[in-house]
Amino acid sequence: MSLQLSILGCHSATPRVNSHPTSQYLEINNSHFLIDCGEGTQRQMRKYKIGFSKINHIFISHLHGDHFFGLIGLVSTFGILNREKDLHIYGPKGIKEITVLQLKLAKSWTKYKLFFHELTSTESELIFEDDKVTVHTIPLDHRVYTNGFLFKEKEKPRKLHIGNIELYDGEINRADYHNIKAGKDITLATGEIVPNSELTIAPAAAKSYAFCSDTAYKPDIVPIIKNVDLLYHEATFLKDREDLCEKTKHSTAEQAGNIAKRASVKKLIIGHYSSRYSNIEAFKKEAQTVFENVELAEAGKQYTTSNNPININN
Amino acid sequence: MSLQLSILGCHSATPRVNSHPTSQYLEINNSHFLIDCGEGTQRQMRKYKIGFSKINHIFISHLHGDHFFGLIGLVSTFGILNREKDLHIYGPKGIKEITVLQLKLAKSWTKYKLFFHELTSTESELIFEDDKVTVHTIPLDHRVYTNGFLFKEKEKPRKLHIGNIELYDGEINRADYHNIKAGKDITLATGEIVPNSELTIAPAAAKSYAFCSDTAYKPDIVPIIKNVDLLYHEATFLKDREDLCEKTKHSTAEQAGNIAKRASVKKLIIGHYSSRYSNIEAFKKEAQTVFENVELAEAGKQYTTSNNPININN
Repeated sequence: MSLQLSILGCHSATPRVNSHPTSQYLEINNSHFLIDCGEGTQRQMRKYKIGFSKINHIFISHLHGDHFFGLIGLVSTFGILNREKDLHIYGPKGIKEITVLQLKLAKSWTKYKLFFHELTSTESELIFEDDKVTVHTIPLDHRVYTNGFLFKEKEKPRKLHIGNIELYDGEINRADYHNIKAGKDITLATGEIVPNSELTIAPAAAKSYAFCSDTAYKPDIVPIIKNVDLLYHEATFLKDREDLCEKTKHSTAEQAGNIAKRASVKKLIIGHYSSRYSNIEAFKKEAQTVFENVELAEAGKQYTTSNNPININN
Repeated sequence: MSLQLSILGCHSATPRVNSHPTSQYLEINNSHFLIDCGEGTQRQMRKYKIGFSKINHIFISHLHGDHFFGLIGLVSTFGILNREKDLHIYGPKGIKEITVLQLKLAKSWTKYKLFFHELTSTESELIFEDDKVTVHTIPLDHRVYTNGFLFKEKEKPRKLHIGNIELYDGEINRADYHNIKAGKDITLATGEIVPNSELTIAPAAAKSYAFCSDTAYKPDIVPIIKNVDLLYHEATFLKDREDLCEKTKHSTAEQAGNIAKRASVKKLIIGHYSSRYSNIEAFKKEAQTVFENVELAEAGKQYTTSNNPININN
């Protein structure tokens, strides 16, 4: 499985007994990322058995408490757990000052290296890249400077189709494999040209995930998130309270559905429900008036690009 | 009931699924105080149905995360709940800078007034007083500047003993009540003197609670906490790891018992157990080798000056 999203918390505003602020854990192409870190995230990670040592990169969308008040606790706990690996934190300017001030006053410097990547651009930019994954920002429209994040697997190379290659026994040999892997066609001694597509297998399609919270309805993001496999888009209110969306810079479930439709995404997950709603099924229903393939985010659920959500509650 | 302590969390270091960092809620003489505020405290307050609006004064012992990382979330939640009443926060110098920086970056100023009382003294000092209660600091010995807190009910005035007064029908009248309440003896027309003690009833004894976490063994605090009704003293390790106490500036259960004995307190509650111990009963056993009346702190339990602990888990 190349993309798996675990919801650790998906409610807005304040933590309650059974509703946790935003945090998500993403496994993509064997890389592991934490996205947002509301108060109590480290407890949720323990509850759902997320390995603390797997996380080397944390992405914070904005500096409202329900998206980052758990960060300093997690940074400290990594220290208590004798972490040695570097930790990279991506978030709005100011995140370094807050974190460093608290560590300083607690006289609790981390022994591991802590790198801050402070974001200020209002244009989408590449903020992380390795040989497997890229991460771009998705500039959002909220009351404070906010980014969503677009995670994309890199295209994998085509693999050798050994079965087909062996049909040319003696005519194609191991010395040719390098060229085949590089995408070249092969000319046999007879002058016949064997097309590369016959000698290789296409890799699984590269997967992508877009995280968009918190934001007012912003169709400008559509080109950035076009065709993603999985889109998380906030839906804080239903459209009966669209007036509150304008005031607070949030979205309705219908607006989330609209973004999903316009971006032709494969699946939409909505969350960040306001605590004023006790029945969150209404969010799904409203989004589905616009876009069919909608799931409701729920703490303890895992979503992949193919299957129905898996419950990891225990 | 004039003194009731509710434990919201009592473990050290990092929050886990079933162990919460330090926070306590104290009701004394109808005043309500929050003491320390580790990550997740607001969730624990909801779980145990602690009224958010009752809290006007929060006391933070020191700036290690397991004692204050929940504070900014609580301050923010008060704002979201449209609090209007003033909030007073007492804690080490730096607590204002941290809190204000986070509110500023979130552009989430509180509408209610926030007062910081930053502490720097290494001598016990009076930091709060109203007509019912006083609070003094208890300077402790930890890796960073740390105070415990001593909460004392004020002595209540003696009450009129109406039954006895009526025995002097016609000889003592309502005009004398003011003098009786003021503690004066009454001279009857006959010249007979009726002692005040006969005409009044002694109030219930004023209660007191001392909170001491985190600290190395520090007998200097004994005179400050002498004869308190209830003492909470940290016991992070058992004496088999007294070496760790020296290094980390914590106490063993036996040392906590020693402080309780030397201060002749009525009841000792211990907590702040290191997560290295799975059986916390051993802490009670060790403390009881020195001091008999020991209770183990446990999240969701209430302790009074008289009864056995009450379980408020739900």
